Amino acid sequence: MEVNADDFFKAANLDKPRVTNKVGSNVTLINVMQIAGLNTLGISIARIDYAPLGQNPPHTHPRATEILTVLEGTLYVGFGTSNQPAPNRNKFLSKVLHKGDVFVFPVGLFHFQFNPNPHQPAVAIAALSSQNPGAITIANAVFGSDPPISDDVLAEAFQVEKNTIDYLQAQFWENNHN
Amino acid sequence: MEVNADDFFKAANLDKPRVTNKVGSNVTLINVMQIAGLNTLGISIARIDYAPLGQNPPHTHPRATEILTVLEGTLYVGFGTSNQPAPNRNKFLSKVLHKGDVFVFPVGLFHFQFNPNPHQPAVAIAALSSQNPGAITIANAVFGSDPPISDDVLAEAFQVEKNTIDYLQAQFWENNHN
Amino acid sequence: MEVNADDFFKAANLDKPRVTNKVGSNVTLINVMQIAGLNTLGISIARIDYAPLGQNPPHTHPRATEILTVLEGTLYVGFGTSNQPAPNRNKFLSKVLHKGDVFVFPVGLFHFQFNPNPHQPAVAIAALSSQNPGAITIANAVFGSDPPISDDVLAEAFQVEKNTIDYLQAQFWENNHN
Amino acid sequence: MEVNADDFFKAANLDKPRVTNKVGSNVTLINVMQIAGLNTLGISIARIDYAPLGQNPPHTHPRATEILTVLEGTLYVGFGTSNQPAPNRNKFLSKVLHKGDVFVFPVGLFHFQFNPNPHQPAVAIAALSSQNPGAITIANAVFGSDPPISDDVLAEAFQVEKNTIDYLQAQFWENNHN
Amino acid sequence: MEVNADDFFKAANLDKPRVTNKVGSNVTLINVMQIAGLNTLGISIARIDYAPLGQNPPHTHPRATEILTVLEGTLYVGFGTSNQPAPNRNKFLSKVLHKGDVFVFPVGLFHFQFNPNPHQPAVAIAALSSQNPGAITIANAVFGSDPPISDDVLAEAFQVEKNTIDYLQAQFWENNHN
Amino acid sequence: MEVNADDFFKAANLDKPRVTNKVGSNVTLINVMQIAGLNTLGISIARIDYAPLGQNPPHTHPRATEILTVLEGTLYVGFGTSNQPAPNRNKFLSKVLHKGDVFVFPVGLFHFQFNPNPHQPAVAIAALSSQNPGAITIANAVFGSDPPISDDVLAEAFQVEKNTIDYLQAQFWENNHN
Repeated sequence: MEVNADDFFKAANLDKPRVTNKVGSNVTLINVMQIAGLNTLGISIARIDYAPLGQNPPHTHPRATEILTVLEGTLYVGFGTSNQPAPNRNKFLSKVLHKGDVFVFPVGLFHFQFNPNPHQPAVAIAALSSQNPGAITIANAVFGSDPPISDDVLAEAFQVEKNTIDYLQAQFWENNHN
Repeated sequence: MEVNADDFFKAANLDKPRVTNKVGSNVTLINVMQIAGLNTLGISIARIDYAPLGQNPPHTHPRATEILTVLEGTLYVGFGTSNQPAPNRNKFLSKVLHKGDVFVFPVGLFHFQFNPNPHQPAVAIAALSSQNPGAITIANAVFGSDPPISDDVLAEAFQVEKNTIDYLQAQFWENNHN
Repeated sequence: MEVNADDFFKAANLDKPRVTNKVGSNVTLINVMQIAGLNTLGISIARIDYAPLGQNPPHTHPRATEILTVLEGTLYVGFGTSNQPAPNRNKFLSKVLHKGDVFVFPVGLFHFQFNPNPHQPAVAIAALSSQNPGAITIANAVFGSDPPISDDVLAEAFQVEKNTIDYLQAQFWENNHN
Repeated sequence: MEVNADDFFKAANLDKPRVTNKVGSNVTLINVMQIAGLNTLGISIARIDYAPLGQNPPHTHPRATEILTVLEGTLYVGFGTSNQPAPNRNKFLSKVLHKGDVFVFPVGLFHFQFNPNPHQPAVAIAALSSQNPGAITIANAVFGSDPPISDDVLAEAFQVEKNTIDYLQAQFWENNHN
Repeated sequence: MEVNADDFFKAANLDKPRVTNKVGSNVTLINVMQIAGLNTLGISIARIDYAPLGQNPPHTHPRATEILTVLEGTLYVGFGTSNQPAPNRNKFLSKVLHKGDVFVFPVGLFHFQFNPNPHQPAVAIAALSSQNPGAITIANAVFGSDPPISDDVLAEAFQVEKNTIDYLQAQFWENNHN
Repeated sequence: MEVNADDFFKAANLDKPRVTNKVGSNVTLINVMQIAGLNTLGISIARIDYAPLGQNPPHTHPRATEILTVLEGTLYVGFGTSNQPAPNRNKFLSKVLHKGDVFVFPVGLFHFQFNPNPHQPAVAIAALSSQNPGAITIANAVFGSDPPISDDVLAEAFQVEKNTIDYLQAQFWENNHN
């Protein structure tokens, strides 16, 4: 089969602002579904838009590390470590990033980015170490799954009353990937 | 350096019941910290104890797939898929497992096991595809981190009032790994 | 294609004793042939039954490290190292395992488990670092292959008379995997 | 050892234009030498500046695939395939990229980016599938090495007279990485 | 640290015939112990000498596939497959190789080469897909280990009387690697 | 599907001298296209013939490290390092190899072999750490691609006049792989 430059190309419009969702973000990921030539090559790229006070809420990539640089605005970012022995047990590592800064979110660790500016949007470019990294937004996956997870289980897991879980499960959980 | 059988051995007492924690479980993991000979070999093993109505609450392993078999009792288990396009977007896949059944939790996906029996404990053996798989209990890592995550960020991410987040962050978050 | 919990599940009856073979063992392996969802995930699990004085005879897994824990009884286990320089040249590392102990057999090294108890059976759970680890029982593969290996070659390799090889090749070589 | 957010951070100023070199480009790579937390994580990121009519000349990354998006200006990009059988033997695949477009350069294949605009600079963000991808600019490595490669060998390899090689080796070969 | 061509070089004399051992072979392996620059690079090379009617007896490489080409003479080669379901259960695949032929022994499978010519030596070059492939000669590792394996275990495993095992363990087991 | 010894075999005639090409070499590579059983196994092997004063010109393998041993004659070999910081920036490491010597060319680095003897041919066996390593001869890929690369780009990249590039592109670029 003859290869073609278009197998390695996508007119992705990553320069264009996107409409953000309810929590104030939008992730435009270019992975192997958009560029077939990425197959087996272990990388993908995304533009992330943040509304003022918007966030890309706590999520994980089950198959990729992420490296991010800020193009516009300011981001407050962080990730959580695992249930390991002290001194690194369930730590939360965070940083305020300015334009041009670079930050790394290690594979499988939950992380978020928040735009603390009430007036200005922010923009980042992120790259991921898989051609199909996956993304699991914790709130959406835990409280907005199809079918819902048992509220008995979640009430105990999150140490709240069942009606709090029911309230959470009744929200409209919208992903920030189109 | 001369190798020795003890480099590949641990008197782990995996046959012994463990005291379970506040949410009713206890994970005894034997990884490369316990058996130095596992270094680079990509596997580890655990015994998991479940109190009646106890659970190993929603968590992820950032670097491993898990395969589990039930030794005693019954388990209601499940995992969530990613924010991918339909028909697999944020699905929740679950199953009731009986003694001798086997179930797989793919790498990086959040999952839990719950013992639905109000009178009997349950026991499972699980193996993980890494000598250092890591474990991140979602509730503990998100609401019990050190330092705490900003309640502004979490209130928006989970679509609840800040005082609900503050309540969650005030709980005593205990891990189920000793 | 829509995924389903059954793609990650097997009613494997790993809690049930198995009839052991002629050398006194039976390996019930749950790999990617039984659970399609294991594809590419790098792990599998097995129950191993041992008759009194039975053994899982010397064998190798060409594509996996094994980690094993004893559920019932006692096992005398060991593995051999390679033709490397001293002090580790062709060493035999062994250990007596009791209930709850854990032992590791590194990828590709030949190993066995033997139940030294003349009256009681033993049971172990083992996990392997491949969804398709393979198993090659040395005696069966060397003396019971189809077609047989030249007895000239084997007589020289094992430094015995050809009639000893012919005797070995005339045995009924039964695998301990069903 | 306690981890810290700074282990995963670099104030890299990737938003700032860089002075370009003699062939009109400048690559600012953030890899494991700048961010220690990238160790083993398989990714890095770079900003590339292009002067009007400047280029990031033909080069390879021995250990990484590259994915690139254009932030400013226009780029004419291309890569060469290997000495394989037709129809893909030594093909040159090229594309003109505009702002927001994405292109992939597969691991180990030589590639370049050229800014065809005589008046405007261009800028790209590129990510690489290794924490230490390496970069080998063909002209510099072949004609500017230390010590020089035998001109007898190069004259035959490039099918030119030795004085052409000597002329090439006498140039000042400046890398576009600082 | 400055690298040097000698880090990637070994004056290995692979062109010189070697004295063969008791079973008629000699393997001269150049791996990461001889060439430090091979570290992490996943390859090694060997010359193998075969006396008339000599063999490189049944052995495995726990961490490598082998590809072999015959430089001098004729070789009868073969490997055994695993205890998998029919039609490939414990098959023995063999071939007579002449000068210039190429054969592959997949990772972890036991294999041998035998020189069927009673008058002429044979020579092969083999490459292995690891910088430290390991080699385990079955007879030596099983019957010549230090300390010896229990003759009770081996008698049952090989379905022979204990005195046959004792006879085997009393042989002088010489490796064919110097 | 039943496997067969022929799936792992090729009557490759690697003992036979080959007619060399215009720059005096010929590479006979046995990879997964010739031996289907090599699939996923990560290795291949080649014979390389060198005419007197012939060369296997500067080239890279995008997916493999190469290890080479000299069977006949003498070879002057070398490879170039990357645009990294001193002391290893764009170094050229070279060595004269005699019969029986072994040399390693790390993955993705450009390298060549030259036969400095004006009267005698040379022969090498090389192995590569991929079942499909790829080979990109720099001169052919840069100056002989289909379609040609823009001479504007190449003139600037190689710091020569466009007519020198046009002259190079007008040569007949013949690969040394049949």
